[in-house]
Amino acid sequence: MAPWGKRLAGVRGVLLDISGVLYDSGAGGGHGLRGAIWQLKRSRLKVRFCTNESQKSRAELVGQLRRLGFDISEGEVTSPAPAACQILKERGLRPYLLIHDGVRSEFDQIDTSNPNCVVIADAGESFSYQNMNNAFQVLMELEKPVLISLGKGRYYKETSGLMLDVGPYMKALEYACGIKAEVVGKPSPEFFKSALQAIGVEAHQAVMIGDDIVGDVGGAQRCGMRALQVRTGKFRPSDEHHPEVKADGYVDNLAEAVDLLLQHADK
Amino acid sequence: MAPWGKRLAGVRGVLLDISGVLYDSGAGGGHGLRGAIWQLKRSRLKVRFCTNESQKSRAELVGQLRRLGFDISEGEVTSPAPAACQILKERGLRPYLLIHDGVRSEFDQIDTSNPNCVVIADAGESFSYQNMNNAFQVLMELEKPVLISLGKGRYYKETSGLMLDVGPYMKALEYACGIKAEVVGKPSPEFFKSALQAIGVEAHQAVMIGDDIVGDVGGAQRCGMRALQVRTGKFRPSDEHHPEVKADGYVDNLAEAVDLLLQHADK
Repeated sequence: MAPWGKRLAGVRGVLLDISGVLYDSGAGGGHGLRGAIWQLKRSRLKVRFCTNESQKSRAELVGQLRRLGFDISEGEVTSPAPAACQILKERGLRPYLLIHDGVRSEFDQIDTSNPNCVVIADAGESFSYQNMNNAFQVLMELEKPVLISLGKGRYYKETSGLMLDVGPYMKALEYACGIKAEVVGKPSPEFFKSALQAIGVEAHQAVMIGDDIVGDVGGAQRCGMRALQVRTGKFRPSDEHHPEVKADGYVDNLAEAVDLLLQHADK
Repeated sequence: MAPWGKRLAGVRGVLLDISGVLYDSGAGGGHGLRGAIWQLKRSRLKVRFCTNESQKSRAELVGQLRRLGFDISEGEVTSPAPAACQILKERGLRPYLLIHDGVRSEFDQIDTSNPNCVVIADAGESFSYQNMNNAFQVLMELEKPVLISLGKGRYYKETSGLMLDVGPYMKALEYACGIKAEVVGKPSPEFFKSALQAIGVEAHQAVMIGDDIVGDVGGAQRCGMRALQVRTGKFRPSDEHHPEVKADGYVDNLAEAVDLLLQHADK
């Protein structure tokens, strides 16, 4: 039994990362994880999925998870593309979209003519030199360049191996243009707060469960939440000795996290 | 007459950037620049071409310049690929080469099997997601990842507009892997020093002429050289008010720089 389990006392709400936690989580998983979600959602705990997924629209993401057997609906997901759309509308920004085709539908209502900013997301194969250079040229033409990045993750894990995420490409444009991007998504405090608001839970009553020691664990802790790291997905053993971030607990996978939560949260 | 011209007194050697100075230098240029090089090489001043060009081999670069009418030979050029090859050999490194096909011949003698480092250069269109991810995966497999970057320029100017240089992609891999690249090329002091050695001139007797306020001007000044910025190539008016670097002088183009040098250097 994890000796730190008692740190979960008083938890009322749970934020769950998706990639690396629910799927692409390495060996094991599968049936056990579907059962864990099922149990969690039938407990007294409020649950919200809080993802930086920016290759797929929420509809596509939820469809994929449901096909994998997970009981999840679109309304339970906080993801960066809708948050970015709200910012674009509020500030009258017309983006050049350096994004994956899978997430383009989230921007259907956004005017992209004569761009006055760049939105960058996990574009995968669309991170061609040509597309990066287009984004760069848009930014260099602007008097006050605005670069909005959906997350700033370094990499994620697919079955085929580690894959570059949006963060490295965000850094590339920051350096090229001498600017600083605005990050929408984890670890931005606004993003965690909007996920907590959606379930009506205060930060000190909530725990984040994720595979990213910096983006999930560190980000949530800076917002006053507790945070567990799962040893799945992009987890690496060195994360448990990270120089700056220490999780409240480390679990082998989501199923172990849910067991501990159901046992300790009410105490 | 430039009032700062007298700062050129005592100059014995001249290092010349190529791209943005000899060509891709915007309007004007052409015949005047070829004449300037001709005059310079027939003066008492020692001349060395000091370039971060990493898309082309020296042979290809010199061939192109000769076709443009410039009197230049391969032996007069200091460029980063040969410097990198020397480092690779000295340290027994076998690189994954994230480079442009045009410069691949410079690495003909280098063992690239079972890579234990990454060499990144201005790869242009070869900066695909796939190639970047290959380099990333090589680095993440290494216990002590070594990333060697041929220059760290932000961008350069082609006739068609500003183009991303190697620097942004170097930054992307640095961030993705949590490492720091070793830069071979300007503004590395070793690189400037090897160019000075080639003409037997001390730093305090030399002037660098380039279009890059940070890489050319700032880098040369940190080595104890004087440095002029040309208002061609990637020059932007804001460079003359750069927060950290102030050139010893600004000239409209290489021809003006050479005029001033021939007039003041001997005094």
